[in-house]
Amino acid sequence: MVDRERSATRIERDVETLAGPAYTLSDRAICRYAYTDAYRATLDYFARALAELGFEISHDPVGTLVARNRPAGEPVFGIGSHCDSNRNGGRYDGTMGVVAALEVCRLNEELGLGLPLQLISFLEEEGSGFGQMLLGSRIMLQRVTEEELRESFRALDDGRSFWEHAEAAGHEPARWRESIHVLDDLTGWIEMHIEQARVLQDTGKRLGIVTAIAGYVHADVTVHGRGDHAGATPMDLRLDPTLPLAETILELERLAREAGKGTVGTVGEIEPAPGLINAIAERVRFSLDIRGPDDDAYRAVARDVAAFAEQAAERRGMRAEYAQRQTLAATPLDDRIVGALEQAAAATGEPYMRMHSGAAHDTMCVAERVPSAMLFVPCRDGISHSPLEEASPADAALAAEVMLNAIAALQAA
Amino acid sequence: MVDRERSATRIERDVETLAGPAYTLSDRAICRYAYTDAYRATLDYFARALAELGFEISHDPVGTLVARNRPAGEPVFGIGSHCDSNRNGGRYDGTMGVVAALEVCRLNEELGLGLPLQLISFLEEEGSGFGQMLLGSRIMLQRVTEEELRESFRALDDGRSFWEHAEAAGHEPARWRESIHVLDDLTGWIEMHIEQARVLQDTGKRLGIVTAIAGYVHADVTVHGRGDHAGATPMDLRLDPTLPLAETILELERLAREAGKGTVGTVGEIEPAPGLINAIAERVRFSLDIRGPDDDAYRAVARDVAAFAEQAAERRGMRAEYAQRQTLAATPLDDRIVGALEQAAAATGEPYMRMHSGAAHDTMCVAERVPSAMLFVPCRDGISHSPLEEASPADAALAAEVMLNAIAALQAA
Repeated sequence: MVDRERSATRIERDVETLAGPAYTLSDRAICRYAYTDAYRATLDYFARALAELGFEISHDPVGTLVARNRPAGEPVFGIGSHCDSNRNGGRYDGTMGVVAALEVCRLNEELGLGLPLQLISFLEEEGSGFGQMLLGSRIMLQRVTEEELRESFRALDDGRSFWEHAEAAGHEPARWRESIHVLDDLTGWIEMHIEQARVLQDTGKRLGIVTAIAGYVHADVTVHGRGDHAGATPMDLRLDPTLPLAETILELERLAREAGKGTVGTVGEIEPAPGLINAIAERVRFSLDIRGPDDDAYRAVARDVAAFAEQAAERRGMRAEYAQRQTLAATPLDDRIVGALEQAAAATGEPYMRMHSGAAHDTMCVAERVPSAMLFVPCRDGISHSPLEEASPADAALAAEVMLNAIAALQAA
Repeated sequence: MVDRERSATRIERDVETLAGPAYTLSDRAICRYAYTDAYRATLDYFARALAELGFEISHDPVGTLVARNRPAGEPVFGIGSHCDSNRNGGRYDGTMGVVAALEVCRLNEELGLGLPLQLISFLEEEGSGFGQMLLGSRIMLQRVTEEELRESFRALDDGRSFWEHAEAAGHEPARWRESIHVLDDLTGWIEMHIEQARVLQDTGKRLGIVTAIAGYVHADVTVHGRGDHAGATPMDLRLDPTLPLAETILELERLAREAGKGTVGTVGEIEPAPGLINAIAERVRFSLDIRGPDDDAYRAVARDVAAFAEQAAERRGMRAEYAQRQTLAATPLDDRIVGALEQAAAATGEPYMRMHSGAAHDTMCVAERVPSAMLFVPCRDGISHSPLEEASPADAALAAEVMLNAIAALQAA
C-alpha cells in the first residue's frame, strides 16, 4: 500500500536539501543550532512542507516546532525528533528523524488515513548552542530551573544567556513553563533516529525497535601517586598512579561484561599529570561512562569499579578519589507501542530486532508523560556526530511505513 | 683536617647567592640558561672566585667555563657540573655541583695540597635554552653536527639558531670542534650532583658513589582501536584501545621488576583520541621510558614490552605500533675512581652506598674520553626540577671533602 521507493526519494531529497549551504553554518560539516539563521531556515522548511499538508504550525515559548492536523484539545499521536546538529555533524542524526516523521504525515495524507498527528522538532538536543544536551525536551518537562535559563546556560559562541538569545529570536522564554502543554493531547510518541552504533549493521538488520533507553553514570576517578624521576626512582620506591589506572580499566571491562543486560563501561578520558615521558605521574584522572537499560546492573558496576579503584590504589600505597559528574536513570519504553512497532515491522518481512538505546534522546523526557517508543535505522559503521555519518533513505522510508502502520493499528485498537 | 662546617657555610653562601635576583630570570624559581644575563652573571661569579684562588679562567668556543690551576699541557684532574637550570628549577640541581667543585679548589689551596685541578661548568645541560639536553658536553664530545648547531637547534624563546645566539654572546661557534681539547689534559673526572630520586633519603645515606649511569630507550606505542559511541556500542562489538594500554602498563611493571639490575620502566604520557567521556577512543598513544645501568637488561624489557603491546592489541582485534624516539647506552664509570671515592667516603665514617644514576648527566659524555665517576648527595623527597628542590650544604661539604681526598689518593698512587 505504501510506495516505499517514492518515500525514499522524498526523504533523500529532504535530507540533501537540508545539507545545503542555507541550512548549515559550515561548509565542511552540518553545523546547526538554535536561533541561528541556518536553524530557522530548517524549521521553516519543515513548517512549509507541513503547512502544505494542512497542518497547523506553532512554536512553544522557546522555539520548539509543533505541527498538528487536529485542533488543540483533540487527541493526536506524536512523532518527530530534533533537527539541530553537533558542531561537526552529519546530515542524518536527528534531521532524518524529523524528515521521516514528515514522510509519515505525507503518507497519512496521500493514503487518506486521517490519522491525528502532531509533529515535534525539539530544540537543542545536541547542546551545540548552549552546551546543554536535550535542552528543548528538558525545558518542556520542567527539568531545568528558571535561574539556569536566565543565567547559567550561556551560548558557547558569545557567552550571552539562553534567555537573552531566546528573546532576541522573538520567543517568550518567560513563558517556558507552558512548553509542557505541547504534550497535553498526545496519546503516544514515536521518534525515529539513526542508531549511532553498529549493532544493526553488524547483525544485518534494517530496523531496531527500541525497548528502553539506557541510563548512565558519568564519573571521574583521580589516583594520587607521587611524581618522581622516571629514570632515578627504583621500581620498589615508586607510587605510580598509572598502575591502579590500568587495573581499573581492566576491572571495568570485567565488571561490565559480568553484569550483562546491555551494561557497558568506557574510560574515554585519561589525563596523567604532568604527562611527561621522563616523569612518573604525580596523579592521573580518568573518566567513567557506565550505562545500560537496567539501572540496578549499571549502577552496581559504577559502585564496584569505584570501590575497586580505591582498593587498587590503596594496595599500592596510593589514594583514589571517585567523583560522580552526573547520573540519569534508564527510560523503559511503552510495551504497547513497542508491540505495535514490532507487528508492523514483522509485516514488512524486513529484518529487524528489539534493542535498547545506549545513547540519550529527547524521548527520555517525553516518556515521562506520554507512552513512547523509538525506532532505529542503521548508520554506516556506527559513525555519528561526524560529516562521515551515513544512513539510508530507503531504511528511513521503511521506518516511516512501520511508524504509520503502527500508529494506525494503535488508533484502531 | 677539613673543617666541614666551614665548607658547608661557604657552600650555603654560594648556593643562596646564586638563587638571588641577579642570577635567575624568574622570581618564583631558578630559571637560568645559556647566553642570558643571569647565566653570564653566574659564570662570572664562579670565575671571580676561582681567579682569586689563582686559577686561570677560559671558555671553550661556545661558552663552557674552564678554570685550571696548571698551565695547558700539564695533567689536571677534572671536577665540576653545570649551572644552568630547567625553566622552573631549584637552586641545587647542577649549581651545587659546581659550588662543591669550587669548594674542592678552595680546600686544595687552604690546605696547601697543591693538587692539579680543572673545573668545568658545562653549558645547557638541562636544555632550557634550545631544547637540547647535555648540549655543552655533547658539543665537546662531537656528538652534534654543524648543521644542528647552525640550523636545527633553535632557541625556545625566539627561534633563532644556537649559532646565532652563541655568536651574539661573543663566542666562536665556528670553532666548536676545538671544544674537545678541554678534556685533553684530564687524568680523571668527578661530578657531584643531587640524586634527583629518594634512594639516599629513604635508606638514610649521605653519599651515593655512582658506578654507572643508566642507558635508556624512549619510545611511543600507539594502539589503533575504533572510535565508537560509549553508550551505544555493546561490550562485544568494541575495539577499545585503552584495554591493550592497560595490559601493557601492567606488563611493563612486571617486566621491569623481573629484569632487576636497576631496570625501571615508566608510562608517563597517555593520550587517548578523541579523549571524550562518552566516546570509545579511536586510538591511544603512550610513552615508554625504560632505563637501567645494564644495557642488555633494559633493552630486553623494551623489546618484550613492544612485542607484548602488539600481541595484546592483536588478541583484541586491534593493532599496536611501536616507535623508538631515542636510545642511549649505559655509561659504566671508572673502577679506580669509584674505588678511590669509596675509600674516601668510608674514611669519613658517614653512611654512603654504591648506586647507579637513573638520570642522564654530562659525565655520560666526559666518560667517553676520561676515566670518570660521580658522587650523589640526597635531595629531599627526590624532588628536582622544581622550586621545591632542597638539598643540604652539609652533605655537599662532605662530598667536597671526599672528592678532595679521593683525588689526592689518586694523585699519590
